[in-house]
Formats: sequence, structure tokens, C-alpha cells
Amino acid sequence: MITVEIICFGNELLIGKTINTNANWLGKRLVMLGAELQRVTTISDELEEMAGVVREALKRKPNVIITTGGLGPTFDDMALAAIAKALNRELELNEQAVEFIKERLDKLQKERGLDLELTEERLGMAMVPKGASVLKNRAGSAPGVIVKENDTQIFSVPGVPSEMKAIFDYEIVKYFNLDPTKQFFERSIVVNHIPESELAKAISEIREKYTTIYVKTHPHSSRASAKGMIEVEIHITSLCSEEESVNLNKAEEEIVKIIKTMKGTSDRKPKITLQNNDKISN
Amino acid sequence: MITVEIICFGNELLIGKTINTNANWLGKRLVMLGAELQRVTTISDELEEMAGVVREALKRKPNVIITTGGLGPTFDDMALAAIAKALNRELELNEQAVEFIKERLDKLQKERGLDLELTEERLGMAMVPKGASVLKNRAGSAPGVIVKENDTQIFSVPGVPSEMKAIFDYEIVKYFNLDPTKQFFERSIVVNHIPESELAKAISEIREKYTTIYVKTHPHSSRASAKGMIEVEIHITSLCSEEESVNLNKAEEEIVKIIKTMKGTSDRKPKITLQNNDKISN
Repeated sequence: MITVEIICFGNELLIGKTINTNANWLGKRLVMLGAELQRVTTISDELEEMAGVVREALKRKPNVIITTGGLGPTFDDMALAAIAKALNRELELNEQAVEFIKERLDKLQKERGLDLELTEERLGMAMVPKGASVLKNRAGSAPGVIVKENDTQIFSVPGVPSEMKAIFDYEIVKYFNLDPTKQFFERSIVVNHIPESELAKAISEIREKYTTIYVKTHPHSSRASAKGMIEVEIHITSLCSEEESVNLNKAEEEIVKIIKTMKGTSDRKPKITLQNNDKISN
Repeated sequence: MITVEIICFGNELLIGKTINTNANWLGKRLVMLGAELQRVTTISDELEEMAGVVREALKRKPNVIITTGGLGPTFDDMALAAIAKALNRELELNEQAVEFIKERLDKLQKERGLDLELTEERLGMAMVPKGASVLKNRAGSAPGVIVKENDTQIFSVPGVPSEMKAIFDYEIVKYFNLDPTKQFFERSIVVNHIPESELAKAISEIREKYTTIYVKTHPHSSRASAKGMIEVEIHITSLCSEEESVNLNKAEEEIVKIIKTMKGTSDRKPKITLQNNDKISN
């Protein structure tokens, strides 16, 4: 299984200006690719801090590191400088990146009548760590970057969600060695009128029995309190072959059977709703 | 300035099931309290990993560590065990926590007719690292926990947003030594028809002049492309005294003046919209 760490650069994430939807989107994609996201680290736009976080991640030897944010033409776009520093490499002008940026400027000229010059700031987007290659950005001007250090592949993408998504889906996805025999399966059992703590024992028994399945409870607090009742989601997941996925159904059935023997709150019978959402949407 | 790190425990965050709105909400609150959030780390529900991340954070000596998630009655609620492990302390039954949990069960009995017993799983929520105290949870059953290690105050709160918020606003907030002379100020200048890269120079000049002010550009890509035009937000922030905040106005004026001298796309004049949002809402 491919192990992954995500590093998000951006003060706006730390001061609460922006919700980190990038990490969430990438997390979903990685699950579908059969990869294991082990850690997400969010850090401010300070060169030393950024380089330090990249260095720390490299020490844990994940197969892949994805950095988001800090690519672009402004002073605080320091992702590539930080990665270069972490790898003890120089920054060098990448001709492919220069070509890409020129093409983009031409396109903006033709399509929108923008008369943009190849300024120093724009050329800065083509300064990549020595040995890096660039990844085409179909949604913006800052190319993505790929650079390898020992056994870790580092991908660097912009923080603008549309650009991050375009580079991931058209470029980065190719680098994942998909295991076609495994996929991500999930089931949800939504239970009303039994508190989460009451469900604990039922879950721990099933968990011991099916070791390749992950079972976790999520109280739906706000929705529940709005309706004045208790609601808990039991989320059952597994990355396995189609064949092995019958275990999810078995686990689900056994959990439902156990819940049916439990009593709910004094005046209400437990209510059980099953959700099969193997197809994860965008 | 109080330095803070947030550690979020939860597989659901890594597999993209849940968007990490907790980190965002806490980030906003910390800014308002004049604290500096330096890092957010998200990690899975694995005891060794969790303890490792707490240990790493302690080495960086922040004044405060806030952990979210992993408090509760189920098998994967291991935040307190992880913190105890990181601190090399035993877990011990906290009488105050037992009382709190009993009160909560009584309340659920009276208000909702739930007949709940003090099971082993529920008592597990009262097993806290030696030397820790508990924080009242007005929105749920799992008490928050506070424990000090050297000069770092560690707060542990549940991942359920309503419970995390209640414990933060009623309990944790007291521990922040507010500097009443400073507050968070922000201005936004939304500019249409000038690409982000064109604004780079204007911003770097202002930035060199006002060293206590932070200026960052955010392209509004999706909104902009929907309207078929370029839109960039220049976000100006500072944590300073009321008196010093005039510098924000000066910086804003100077940026606007510079933008007005710039040309936009060939057929459109730059459009400037000012936003003064010093009052951050919930």
C-alpha cells in the first residue's frame, strides 16, 4: 500500500480564514486509489518552518509527499524554495516551466485580451529544485512540480482548489501504482435512540472478529439535537478485494442483529437505517 | 504571544469522510485571543502514532497543545492513553470525571428517560493521565482534560464540534492570558481585472514598509471563472493595538493608490472593492 503525507502551506489555514477542503478532497482521492494517507500537517508561510516540516516528513519515509499552497508569483509563495532547502538542492530555472508559463500568458492574451509580460515574479514560478520536473496546470499559471528524494516522490501543487484538483487528476494520479485487485468499500448503519457508549461493546466484538475491517462510531450531535434525539453512525470500511468484501456485509448483518437485541431509550425502539455508499462521489 | 499547536486525531479526517472544521474554528478563536497557531497535525487513531505526534509537538515547546477527537467511550477513543504514553505517565481514575459522567447519566435519565449504567466503557472516559484535571463538557458525556508538562499546557477535547466548542468557550478560554492592549484587525481589498502576479510588486513594496502587517493575496478562482473574469483578494492583517491599527488603513490606502495606477485587462478598468471585517463572526 502506498503511504502518503500531505503538507499544507498557508497562514490563511492557520488563522481560520480558509477551511482546509484540499486535504479533505485529497484524502478521498487517495482512499479511492488504495493509498494510505498517514498524516496531514498545516504550517505557516515561513521558509524555515516549511523546510523543517518537509525534512520531518522525509524522515518518516512515506512513498509520497504532496504539498499544497505556496506556488505562485507572490512573495509568500515559497513552497519550491522550502523543498529545495529541505533537500539541500539549488533552485534552477526549468525550461519546461518557462515554456508552460509563456503558453499560459499567450493563451490569456488571445482569450481574454490580457497583455501580460514575463516578469521576474512570473519567472519565479519556473525556479524549481535541481532535478525536479514540472506538471502541467490546466486551470492556472503556476505549474505543479515533482521531485524525487531517495524513495519518496514529492509532488507540489498550488493551494487554489481548482488548480490542485486539475494537477492531481490529470498528472499526479498516473504515478500511483494502482492495485486493481483492491478497492474501498464502506457501509453506514445509522442508529437512533441508543447512545454511542451503549454501542461500544457490540462494536468491539465485531472488530475483534473481522480484523481487515475498520469500524468506527460517529455521533451526529447537531442533527440529533435538532430532532431532540440521539443519532449515531456506525461507519464500516475496508480496502479489500471484491471477494473479501462479503465480510463487510457479514459484519453489518451481525451489528444490526446485536442492535436489535438492545433496548433504546425508555419510550422508543432503536431505529436502524442502512447506507451503502461504495461509490464515493466528488 | 501564546504559541499553540493543534493535533487532530481521527481516521475520518484522513480518509476524507469529515472536513476538519474544528481546526478552522479553533484557528479563528485563537486569532481573536491573540494567540499564534503554529501548526495543525492530523493523524489516525493509532496509539503509537498519536503518542508520537504529541511527543514531537512537546519538543517544539509551544505554550499550548490542543488535541481534538479520541475522547469517548469507544475502543478507538485513545487520546488520553496517547497523551499519558507521550508523557510517560500512568492513567488514573479521576473522581471529578466520574462525578461528571454520573451527573450526565442522571441528567439523560431525567430529561430523556434514558436508563444508562456506569459501564466500564463509560468509566474509561474518566481514566486520565496522572496529574490531569477535567474540564466540564456542557454538550456531551466525555469530559475535556487539561494536563501540564513542563511549560506546555495540554488541552484535550472531543472531536464532536458542539462539544469541542462548548469546552473551549466555557473552560479553555480562561487559560489564555489575554493581552487587552492588542486585537486582530483585518482588511480585504478585492480587485477585479488584474492578475495576482501583476499585484505582486505592489504588495512587496508595502510589505517592506509596514513590518507589523501581514499582506497576502488570494485568487478567487471559482467565483472569478464563473463570472469569466479575474478576481484577487488582498488580505491585510495585523495583531496590534487600536492605536497601531491606523497602519492598516495607511497600507490599505497606499495599495489602493498603486492599483489605481495599474492597467487592467485590455478592455476593463481595474475594479476595487474594500471590505473591513474586524468583527469576526462565529
